[in-house]
Amino acid sequence: MKLSTTELYDLIKRILTANGCSEEVAEIVTQTVYTAEVSGTLSHGVFRLPGYVSSLRAGWVDGTATPIVHDRAPGVVVVDGNNGFSQVAQRAGRPLVMEKARANGVAALTIRNAHHFAALWPDLEPFGEQGLAAIGFVNTMSLVAPWGGSRKLLGTNPMAFAWPRHNRPPLLWDQASSIMAHGEVLMAAREGRQLPPDTGFDADGNPSTDPARVAEGALNTFGRHKGTAIALMVELLTAGLGGANFGFQDKGKDVPGARTFNGGMTILVIDPGRFDDHLIERAEDFFAVYAQLEGARLPGERRHGSRARADAEGVTIADAQYSALLELLPANEA
Amino acid sequence: MKLSTTELYDLIKRILTANGCSEEVAEIVTQTVYTAEVSGTLSHGVFRLPGYVSSLRAGWVDGTATPIVHDRAPGVVVVDGNNGFSQVAQRAGRPLVMEKARANGVAALTIRNAHHFAALWPDLEPFGEQGLAAIGFVNTMSLVAPWGGSRKLLGTNPMAFAWPRHNRPPLLWDQASSIMAHGEVLMAAREGRQLPPDTGFDADGNPSTDPARVAEGALNTFGRHKGTAIALMVELLTAGLGGANFGFQDKGKDVPGARTFNGGMTILVIDPGRFDDHLIERAEDFFAVYAQLEGARLPGERRHGSRARADAEGVTIADAQYSALLELLPANEA
Repeated sequence: MKLSTTELYDLIKRILTANGCSEEVAEIVTQTVYTAEVSGTLSHGVFRLPGYVSSLRAGWVDGTATPIVHDRAPGVVVVDGNNGFSQVAQRAGRPLVMEKARANGVAALTIRNAHHFAALWPDLEPFGEQGLAAIGFVNTMSLVAPWGGSRKLLGTNPMAFAWPRHNRPPLLWDQASSIMAHGEVLMAAREGRQLPPDTGFDADGNPSTDPARVAEGALNTFGRHKGTAIALMVELLTAGLGGANFGFQDKGKDVPGARTFNGGMTILVIDPGRFDDHLIERAEDFFAVYAQLEGARLPGERRHGSRARADAEGVTIADAQYSALLELLPANEA
Repeated sequence: MKLSTTELYDLIKRILTANGCSEEVAEIVTQTVYTAEVSGTLSHGVFRLPGYVSSLRAGWVDGTATPIVHDRAPGVVVVDGNNGFSQVAQRAGRPLVMEKARANGVAALTIRNAHHFAALWPDLEPFGEQGLAAIGFVNTMSLVAPWGGSRKLLGTNPMAFAWPRHNRPPLLWDQASSIMAHGEVLMAAREGRQLPPDTGFDADGNPSTDPARVAEGALNTFGRHKGTAIALMVELLTAGLGGANFGFQDKGKDVPGARTFNGGMTILVIDPGRFDDHLIERAEDFFAVYAQLEGARLPGERRHGSRARADAEGVTIADAQYSALLELLPANEA
């Protein structure tokens, strides 16, 4: 099924409004799902919509929530998401944290009591586009075993980074602390693909390459103990610093239909202009050398190509997936 | 050769003062070398002293430098190390960045024009011990190939993290963005050990397990492309944000005897007390669950054991290494 970008956007938004999102929330969440899909981040695009809808229908996430912004310190914004989606809380806190970063050179936005079910890199893009650097952290429900163990405790705990480029889109990367994103495990299960060895464990703690078993068990962290160190940091900088739920405190596992996690997120925002003049232009010397290296690629380059292609040619969605999306609409709308 | 901790400390300091460090600089650098050695971080302990001495004798690093502290913004401290050692610059900027972090909730210390040749975790320990969280980044001379490439551009670019514990020493980790620390490659070369496959490349860009060849060629990043993303971030948050040399701008490679890198460092400092009350106590719930996981260990636990053992039993240094250390002293002092 081929959709224009406008048709895709409208379909996502209709699904969200039909399942309990306010107009404003649907607009914000649609942008995150849409951006992931057209950028080729398929594990966080429309593939996630059944999960969003399930949590909404279960009453586990509030699609009409209004976040509360706390101006806690000259460099600190704390947002209570009021059990809504994280992107809505981010939108509420973003202007203030940008203002604080520009005033102080560095500032933090932390979000508690909100559901993050999306790709992380789109959350940092607005900072990079405004000439700011940003580091983002999100914790998730327990899905990952610390290195050396075989039982889940850590989340897939993604971390992301944005650096503003001179006269170009920002450098952006976003990566799970797990060896594979949970969404990729679910996609492998759906498509009947085995996982590489060392991906994770079944629910009994035995190594497994079966995606359905690993989804019930635990993933390894990437890069052995080093990914575990990153995942620990993410857990502490999100739940620890924001007062959000740690992954092991997820109450959703007892709620039928709950697919999202009420957790935490933190974004550290840095204004290079408060450190020195012309730093962004100067860093381009480094990128110029990098670009000449045979075989090496800057993170995120593929995404720009995907977005440009989607704008020009539209987006292809498998027929079965498209039918499943239509089933998320009321009968008279599908 | 067995030394008491006092004998070890005095030996390190005598070597540094005998080779051009002022009393004050020698004291600070000794603490970093000593702390690494007694904590079992052997790749950054006395093993590094010949490198320190070589750079000092070459006049490449200034062992008497006085750093200049710039109070750039309410959340930003920039220190020019004046071509001295990074730890001296850190010491100069630390009180001000701690004050700013407590006032604003988050602050940054960035250092340029300084040589970091030590383990990174001891630099963060003082923050953790004062109830502050910290993230540290250091760039190094080019030693590492971006994922997909086989020629060096990135540094081993370590990143470290400190989180204050309730009534315990802080959680601390420190890890190179390369698959192996450069110091470990040098130790393997000295000991005649081969490296694991996928560690790196020789100077012609061919995969190699020979540590001497990899030391001349390029290391891989850890965790494939994910370690490359981290290394890129470290390069941008140090040289990019601090105006320090990027790894590829190292001028030491043309200076006979230069073993250290005049580069950059950044520490982001966070005061959890400005985010909410009792966050540090609350995070202990997470650590309590973690401690129950079979096989999993918190980073840094081994270091505490090593330090306690060194205090009780002293430190053993191989005879050959001890003789080499004595050769760094003038003939009448050795």
